[in-house]
Amino acid sequence: MDNFTFFSPTKFVFGKETEKEAGNLVKEFGGSRVLIHYGGGSAVRSGLIDRVKYSLDRSGIFHIELGGVKPNPRSGLVYEGIRLCRENDIDFILAVGGGSAIDSSKAIAAGALYDGDFWDFYSGKPITRALSVGTVLTIAAAGSEGSGDSVITKEEGMYKRGTGSEALRPKFSILNPELTTTLPAFQTACGITDIMAHLYERYLTNTRDVEVTDRLIEALLITMKNEGPKVIKDPSDYQARANIMWAGTMAHTNSCGVGRSQDWNSHNIEHELSALYDCAHGAGLAVTMPAVFKYELHHDKERFEQVARRVWGVDSAEEGIEAFRSFLISIGMPSNLEELGGSVEDIPELVKNLCYGDGRTGTITGFVTLDEEDCKRIYQMMV
Amino acid sequence: MDNFTFFSPTKFVFGKETEKEAGNLVKEFGGSRVLIHYGGGSAVRSGLIDRVKYSLDRSGIFHIELGGVKPNPRSGLVYEGIRLCRENDIDFILAVGGGSAIDSSKAIAAGALYDGDFWDFYSGKPITRALSVGTVLTIAAAGSEGSGDSVITKEEGMYKRGTGSEALRPKFSILNPELTTTLPAFQTACGITDIMAHLYERYLTNTRDVEVTDRLIEALLITMKNEGPKVIKDPSDYQARANIMWAGTMAHTNSCGVGRSQDWNSHNIEHELSALYDCAHGAGLAVTMPAVFKYELHHDKERFEQVARRVWGVDSAEEGIEAFRSFLISIGMPSNLEELGGSVEDIPELVKNLCYGDGRTGTITGFVTLDEEDCKRIYQMMV
Repeated sequence: MDNFTFFSPTKFVFGKETEKEAGNLVKEFGGSRVLIHYGGGSAVRSGLIDRVKYSLDRSGIFHIELGGVKPNPRSGLVYEGIRLCRENDIDFILAVGGGSAIDSSKAIAAGALYDGDFWDFYSGKPITRALSVGTVLTIAAAGSEGSGDSVITKEEGMYKRGTGSEALRPKFSILNPELTTTLPAFQTACGITDIMAHLYERYLTNTRDVEVTDRLIEALLITMKNEGPKVIKDPSDYQARANIMWAGTMAHTNSCGVGRSQDWNSHNIEHELSALYDCAHGAGLAVTMPAVFKYELHHDKERFEQVARRVWGVDSAEEGIEAFRSFLISIGMPSNLEELGGSVEDIPELVKNLCYGDGRTGTITGFVTLDEEDCKRIYQMMV
Repeated sequence: MDNFTFFSPTKFVFGKETEKEAGNLVKEFGGSRVLIHYGGGSAVRSGLIDRVKYSLDRSGIFHIELGGVKPNPRSGLVYEGIRLCRENDIDFILAVGGGSAIDSSKAIAAGALYDGDFWDFYSGKPITRALSVGTVLTIAAAGSEGSGDSVITKEEGMYKRGTGSEALRPKFSILNPELTTTLPAFQTACGITDIMAHLYERYLTNTRDVEVTDRLIEALLITMKNEGPKVIKDPSDYQARANIMWAGTMAHTNSCGVGRSQDWNSHNIEHELSALYDCAHGAGLAVTMPAVFKYELHHDKERFEQVARRVWGVDSAEEGIEAFRSFLISIGMPSNLEELGGSVEDIPELVKNLCYGDGRTGTITGFVTLDEEDCKRIYQMMV
């Protein structure tokens, strides 16, 4: 196990009707002027935004709002959010939604206190300060509610890039599984896939002697394997939703990924798919992971055998990858590039964007270092 | 799963030589005048206290020290610590040691800001503020480095009582597994037992639909089952020490115990043993748990069967308890009251202290509610 620092000071308030606590929590963490930042109309139509505003009003907290965050959140809305924060002297951003609303809120939070272009942070500049962020989570998926990470797509060039900073970690996250029971099955399945990707990306490590984190990751993967199909079958299953929601948060605070190298090749390879096709991140991951795992298999076959045995109950590494692929298809995920809206002809562009976009110099490095040729072959395996 | 709040804002700095960070960390969390609080001579003899002082000096931090904390830390030293804090205008307490040094530090931290007798907090009064506490952990066991809990023994009457408060949660904890490689095998085994007790006490729940936390607890129990014997065999096995140390911390931050009722009958029953015999808490737990589990078995046999199957690889609830008992004996733990220095004749006093001591009214409540007769039978099973 490697040396590490683990610091996860987000307060998680979990369970039924917990969105009623929004006002108290903003106050507890020193907020007085709030930007409520959210996505599409469903949070408005369901009455959730009204309930959140009511809670803020009861705590005497000033608020404005900015909706319209799209999946794969864009830089354009971030600039608008930054402008709104400055004009209204905002000191707290409350994200209501999933990873997109939260990631967009984090970008606004960092940008509002920075004189330059916020995109600098997504091109490698470290973030040292940001406005406070809180979240009301409506989909178990990205884990952004418990992490300091944020991924934004730059509209000029459609580059999708990430950043991470302790300053971006939410002060609190309200996790009410009830809010996820109305999600369409496809979005639910995308969330399940994303959570499992966060676990696999940590599982694929070159660090030895990591029994405790191996076991924790396996515990969460088994939870997803068992609870995932329940919510696809019965979207209103509160208990399965609750188990998935806490697993999704635990998957990404990094308590199960400390002290070990991690992969993240699948995420990087997928980001080019969702940037180019604007497909759901989870759907892109469902197509990407089996291809990447098959390609990375021979780097450490024992590791793939271990997860095959302990999580999927099969003996060989290959069977384990196939069991995962079948699981993803069974919950309604796509299995090839075409189903994502892509085609074999896009591969040169995908490879170019992946290996050279935004300052990269020909390779990506995770569990295995992949060059242009490797990446090309992996995309070809998705056809 | 029940509604819950989870807030674990301790910064964990983990790995080799991390005690060198003590000065930086105290500074980061606003400390300027430190009481270093520790136990016996080993922390001094090993040079650890000197290394910590050197680190504080380098950061320009004033410090005084108070050693002498004993296992099952006593109220007397707490009063002395409180006096020292007041006389020296201390604003930060740095515990160097295991659960005893940390729990004693927490008691001092709360008492130093309170006009009354600090024991009030251990008799039920809520703690709302305390001096900041940081820790340099030297034994993986109590989990106090990542919790807001503290257990102190009152010398008048030898009552052992606990309290818990967010105000007591350490600001940071330095976890260097190297510091644990010189521990005697008996203490190491006591630590392993205590960690497994923290896991079992959470596992034994009356809450339904807790797949995610069940799986997380099982992951940590399996880690202890696999890594524990390694460090008994080879005390210098850094990697096994590291796995155990992170498992011990994760076992008690409560991330694996949220949203479910918990047991804690074994801890309560054991506390009377270590209060009366001044035996090691872990040793007392090794004798207590098998008895309690056998007694509680019929309350929910399926739960005991589940842990038997998933952790111990055996089919029946009874075999699972026996496998755990054998494991404890194999790492050198005692298995009956006599080995703890007790005898059957003490049982009336143990039961009286347990069921009526310090304000209790005849029962203790956990996984099962136990009255005087139940407790008597459980102690008798330990003979």
